[in-house]
Amino acid sequence: MPSEIPADSVGYVEPQIAYFNEPLPLRSGRTLDSYQLVYETYGTLNAQRSNAILICHALSGHHHAAGYHQASDKKPGWWNECIGPGKAIDTNHYFVVSLNNLGGCHGSTGPISIDPSTGEPFGPEFPIMAVRDWVKSQARLADQLGIDCWQAVVGGSLGGMQAMRWSIDYPSRLKKCVIIAAAPKLTAQNIAFNEVARQAITSDPDFHAGYYFKHQTLPRKGLALARMLGHITYLSDDSMREKFGRDLATGKLNFNYEIEFEVESYLRYQGEQFSDTFDANTYLLMTKALDYYDPAADFDHDLSQCLSKSQCKFLVLSFSTDWRFAPVRSKEIVNALLRAQKPVSYLEIDAPQGHDAFLFPIPEYVSILQKFLAHPGEPDAH
Amino acid sequence: MPSEIPADSVGYVEPQIAYFNEPLPLRSGRTLDSYQLVYETYGTLNAQRSNAILICHALSGHHHAAGYHQASDKKPGWWNECIGPGKAIDTNHYFVVSLNNLGGCHGSTGPISIDPSTGEPFGPEFPIMAVRDWVKSQARLADQLGIDCWQAVVGGSLGGMQAMRWSIDYPSRLKKCVIIAAAPKLTAQNIAFNEVARQAITSDPDFHAGYYFKHQTLPRKGLALARMLGHITYLSDDSMREKFGRDLATGKLNFNYEIEFEVESYLRYQGEQFSDTFDANTYLLMTKALDYYDPAADFDHDLSQCLSKSQCKFLVLSFSTDWRFAPVRSKEIVNALLRAQKPVSYLEIDAPQGHDAFLFPIPEYVSILQKFLAHPGEPDAH
Repeated sequence: MPSEIPADSVGYVEPQIAYFNEPLPLRSGRTLDSYQLVYETYGTLNAQRSNAILICHALSGHHHAAGYHQASDKKPGWWNECIGPGKAIDTNHYFVVSLNNLGGCHGSTGPISIDPSTGEPFGPEFPIMAVRDWVKSQARLADQLGIDCWQAVVGGSLGGMQAMRWSIDYPSRLKKCVIIAAAPKLTAQNIAFNEVARQAITSDPDFHAGYYFKHQTLPRKGLALARMLGHITYLSDDSMREKFGRDLATGKLNFNYEIEFEVESYLRYQGEQFSDTFDANTYLLMTKALDYYDPAADFDHDLSQCLSKSQCKFLVLSFSTDWRFAPVRSKEIVNALLRAQKPVSYLEIDAPQGHDAFLFPIPEYVSILQKFLAHPGEPDAH
Repeated sequence: MPSEIPADSVGYVEPQIAYFNEPLPLRSGRTLDSYQLVYETYGTLNAQRSNAILICHALSGHHHAAGYHQASDKKPGWWNECIGPGKAIDTNHYFVVSLNNLGGCHGSTGPISIDPSTGEPFGPEFPIMAVRDWVKSQARLADQLGIDCWQAVVGGSLGGMQAMRWSIDYPSRLKKCVIIAAAPKLTAQNIAFNEVARQAITSDPDFHAGYYFKHQTLPRKGLALARMLGHITYLSDDSMREKFGRDLATGKLNFNYEIEFEVESYLRYQGEQFSDTFDANTYLLMTKALDYYDPAADFDHDLSQCLSKSQCKFLVLSFSTDWRFAPVRSKEIVNALLRAQKPVSYLEIDAPQGHDAFLFPIPEYVSILQKFLAHPGEPDAH
């Protein structure tokens, strides 16, 4: 943390927990009898409860999107660049809710939680989640918070898929929908990368079919591998060239099977860091939710039809060098919305960072996000 | 094999072995005291020994490029589509030599060979190979075969890098150089994918630091993972969409951690097949040779300078959907050749197959290859 809380920061925040005892029927056919969601809020809910914005997180994200938990925090929340007083998602005007999704490993009920029916962690027995399940659980959180209608639901990547799902499943409960660096469904190549990541985890002998806690171990190597691979797909070829090029780790070539290039060293570090902080079963579950996402499948694969009941305004954003969910994938969403005669703004932002760009405070990006969320046509936006 | 040998096939072929007792000093600083190279030849060497073409193989390739070893062979050699009587590399006119590179696992000296100094397989102690080492060993094979000058050196991917290296290291020993789907050096992203593949192998507990034979095991899972990942990078997003889309493996979603999509099933099969037939240490070595390749590094990173002594004609080919070595990478080679005022023809071939396109008999591709190799300006081409 900086020595002083910056003026545009939400400052210290404390996670809260919402408990749910009504069973949640899931896409998979299974049911979660009871569960909890950990969430944070930034800004103040107005008297009409009409100024709330929901933030949906991506694959390895969580509820801590802005501010600091304590003075010793090295970094603020993951989307601190965009959430705060005067920022694109302006906490002077909005009440921002950010949660950890079900199946996560940061405080919401998930594979590392204790299954009340066994007294053991759920582990691999935790039900597989679909994006629609998350959205349903988020709607129940909105109910608990007394929020009938979100001013906006906003998300990047897998978070953008949730925002889109909100507009389909709860058309009357959001006024604006911001879908950033997302796609209407994964391609075979996207699924293939996820499958390699999953195989890396499940092939780790420390995985023990997901029951690694029982064996008092963790599939660190497999999870690190999965993260390394994921990481490559989050960056652009250009940004990796810019960041590492062919720089050598020790200043010279050593002609052995150790690290030779900086990029190898970087990736290993990223993998190791991640495997210390993330749960392997959660990683599997999140990649599966990505694979399954295909809302148009219930509408004879007509995305336009699928979005036809939506009532909100859409902002769809993509980034020029994103090859995980390339601009052409965002345009599929835009075209479907246009065919359905829905109000949609679209911008492909020129950015070298690849898929990761959605986390960077790129001026054009921040500016359009801010303008869209502060649209004067929405009387209760301020 | 078809019930009859097709008229445009080289028919039955038999691998041959060349033995070398002169020590081979390597880029790494190490030396290989003696070694053997397995190779095949197709067509007839003319009296002037001037009609020979060298085929250089890619990462997982080998010497068996055309024809059949026996009637029970399910498939012919890996480049059978382009090598044969009347084909692009026409064995009615040319004497084609195709070898397995040093460090390979198909008969040339490599990690699975017995180290004469220990009586055990070399395993991880086999020296790391650089492309220049392969080219040097190929030049010695040419010496043994009495071939002073190749009519052409031809290769795709890592094979194209060898062809390019020939023009740099032995400018007077080739008349034509065909560099297909290659790059002058790997990008950070290319290296990153290789590193993940290597980590997959070395993290497999059956790898045993490369001494898996001693432990009577094989790092099958790691090698399968490496191959799955490689395979994704050989295909284009489009070709995967075309081939698999989001087709389901069992016709319905099962919401478990087993295979859901066809593409997952295909990749697992590819990985398993490969891990039964390829050596893990060889895979590591081949990826390292790719990483190290950067001929311009010895010329102050001036690729044009690096190619300035070449005396051959060049054909550089790329494929529109290849994202492993995209057309822009081939153009780097072409631009360097043009700056060096070398004769070069370049074509980007429209092909949906991604990097793998170089193995397909795409008419435009086959046609330009054939025309380049039969150029009438070369009196001894026929």
